Amino acid sequence: MPDPIDFYFDFSSPYGYLTSRQIDGIAAKHGRAVAWRPHLIGAVFPTTGSRPLLDIPMKGEYALLDLLRTARQMGVPFQLPGQFPFLSVAAARAFYWLSDSDPAMAHDLATALYNAAFGEGRDITVIDTIVAVAAGLGVEGDALRAALGDAAVKDRVKREVAAAIDRGAFGSPYIVVDGEPFWGHDKLDDIDRWLETGGW
Amino acid sequence: MPDPIDFYFDFSSPYGYLTSRQIDGIAAKHGRAVAWRPHLIGAVFPTTGSRPLLDIPMKGEYALLDLLRTARQMGVPFQLPGQFPFLSVAAARAFYWLSDSDPAMAHDLATALYNAAFGEGRDITVIDTIVAVAAGLGVEGDALRAALGDAAVKDRVKREVAAAIDRGAFGSPYIVVDGEPFWGHDKLDDIDRWLETGGW
Repeated sequence: MPDPIDFYFDFSSPYGYLTSRQIDGIAAKHGRAVAWRPHLIGAVFPTTGSRPLLDIPMKGEYALLDLLRTARQMGVPFQLPGQFPFLSVAAARAFYWLSDSDPAMAHDLATALYNAAFGEGRDITVIDTIVAVAAGLGVEGDALRAALGDAAVKDRVKREVAAAIDRGAFGSPYIVVDGEPFWGHDKLDDIDRWLETGGW
Repeated sequence: MPDPIDFYFDFSSPYGYLTSRQIDGIAAKHGRAVAWRPHLIGAVFPTTGSRPLLDIPMKGEYALLDLLRTARQMGVPFQLPGQFPFLSVAAARAFYWLSDSDPAMAHDLATALYNAAFGEGRDITVIDTIVAVAAGLGVEGDALRAALGDAAVKDRVKREVAAAIDRGAFGSPYIVVDGEPFWGHDKLDDIDRWLETGGW
């Protein structure tokens, strides 16, 4: 069984959301699994000198047009939450906490949080919202609330972010296939071809 | 006859080079022409807060890997000139000067300059190199040398760069199809589909 494909993403990344709707299907076509790895891209900004995409003059206007156009092409709902950009650290903590006991449910939580944020425009910085989304999957609220304030969970997210940076993940989505990195939603066709051919 | 597709690019942009190898063919499939429009992306950096791609930590390392991988996939020669990034203003002046008298030859000069820089790794900041490349197309050297120092030609390039910025061209390649902008070499497949379908 080959290693899973590593899917690094930030819960506040709209291109990460669009990718989340497709990456499992692309991998499955080639008999591959995907390891979803929430990342906090803001941690890379001091290194790259970047900042939230939609805040960048000229580039931000283009990116919004491209996001809406790409979502139309995919036929998926898309909207920006009222508060954008937003801090995704609570969502990442919820994910990694849940992944220790139930990786499949953590994956479903990631999907549900992304859909809440960019499908429905909800504010997933609010703990009550995260708890409500998780409750829809059967996650017990008090345990989740406790986890979001747990120092061990916070440390876990820090380690995951550091590992993502070590792997070179400077953006979202950042996908690693058998050691080969691909950055951006625009690379999904190339990832499909790479999985098909074994590379070039 | 529909308007040509606008292809904004910087002669110092390696993704612009890769795009230059494909854009005419994609347009021709759909009976469309391409207006090649050299741009000076550095003029946008104060607005976007960006800087030369390969100088950006993490992102630059990825970009070089991706450029080499994409060139391999396309089967085109690719190398970075020894001096990189470089100032492309002389190349842009040569192009616009020639385009007034002979647009077809200006197009061929653009192709030849890009191939010299990124196919052969030559330094196209050097006027002698530009003159030599142009001589291969039959362009008279003394006239070209005079043009490169001509205030009217310098002003022409400034106006073209200002017009590109007005159009939203924050990067290279930046391609406008019937008013719809597309940024990046990765968008060529989408451009092909847009031309095929009329948009979505």
